[in-house]
Amino acid sequence: MEILQERIRREGRILSDTVLKVDSFLNHQVDTALALEIGREFARIFADKPVTKVLTIEASGIQFAMATGIALGVPFVYAKKKKAVTLADKVYSAPVRSFTRGEEYQVCVAQQYLGPSDKVLIVDDFLATGAALVGLVDIVREAGAELAGVGCVIEKSFQEGRGLLEEKGVRVHSLARIVSMSPGDVRFADNGSSNPRIKEPV
Amino acid sequence: MEILQERIRREGRILSDTVLKVDSFLNHQVDTALALEIGREFARIFADKPVTKVLTIEASGIQFAMATGIALGVPFVYAKKKKAVTLADKVYSAPVRSFTRGEEYQVCVAQQYLGPSDKVLIVDDFLATGAALVGLVDIVREAGAELAGVGCVIEKSFQEGRGLLEEKGVRVHSLARIVSMSPGDVRFADNGSSNPRIKEPV
Repeated sequence: MEILQERIRREGRILSDTVLKVDSFLNHQVDTALALEIGREFARIFADKPVTKVLTIEASGIQFAMATGIALGVPFVYAKKKKAVTLADKVYSAPVRSFTRGEEYQVCVAQQYLGPSDKVLIVDDFLATGAALVGLVDIVREAGAELAGVGCVIEKSFQEGRGLLEEKGVRVHSLARIVSMSPGDVRFADNGSSNPRIKEPV
Repeated sequence: MEILQERIRREGRILSDTVLKVDSFLNHQVDTALALEIGREFARIFADKPVTKVLTIEASGIQFAMATGIALGVPFVYAKKKKAVTLADKVYSAPVRSFTRGEEYQVCVAQQYLGPSDKVLIVDDFLATGAALVGLVDIVREAGAELAGVGCVIEKSFQEGRGLLEEKGVRVHSLARIVSMSPGDVRFADNGSSNPRIKEPV
């Protein structure tokens, strides 16, 4: 998705070989027009599947699940992160180890919102280690729902997330696949070429 | 907002005199069409103010900030909840005591995303004790931005939140104002009448 890659080049802040901050337009401040475009793109990519529900995880996946739900005309569900499962309602849950925060949590979805009649598209902002997304895939399968696939806004292709999902037989599509990055430079998978970042005047 | 009140009557689960669950359509599973309607309603109500940015707090405010940002054609910012402020970037922050969880946290917004040129509309899903919203109001003022007002989807009018905000000179508008509730019955402020809930067949 060229408009997204261009925006990452212009506004993304690469803090190290693995840390990319995109909080000026994707996950702290959110460009609503771009988020809607992202939702339409996921709807287009997965148009061959009759999706009934979009699934994501709080918090930074919500704007993209919302946009995708709007584009598809379906509701979305956001899984909640809990230290331990103590919900009154019955939930599907999966353990997730957060590498950035070094802690384990449970990702939970109330059972009444996912079931065998659902065809689910999972979306999230980042695909890196894949830990949270693997948890969501497990929940969809535990619910007996059909999984249309996983759509991610930004993929760090040099981390293991895609491999883990594909091993589970999951179709993965990311709108911007970063093959490598370092401060001042980000390379996308589409053409493999180096794309020097142009810093806009502030 | 009649469509919202009707939905609360039909699908809201009143667990006690103070606890209302609306997670089938507002804050776990989200009806995207209804969320868009809610955004349009906030845009209509605050149409006299030239809003440049919508502000909310993660996670359950995000879908309504997104919808309001779409309706107004502006970006939104979601404040993050932190145990302690350890962000690398400079942030505005305010302490918030969560009554439901019995813990205190910091609500934070990176300074580069709010400033004196902004006219801010704050939105959230619930107005009850007002703790989080008072924190957001303090952040807007600390940033030197102008506050257009606070829009809430559901207000529990029998709790102190509205009073706390109005004491700070804040204009508050809620789309469904609940004056009292108990299992099987919810009363809205609009007409003061009792609205027995009609439970749909599942």
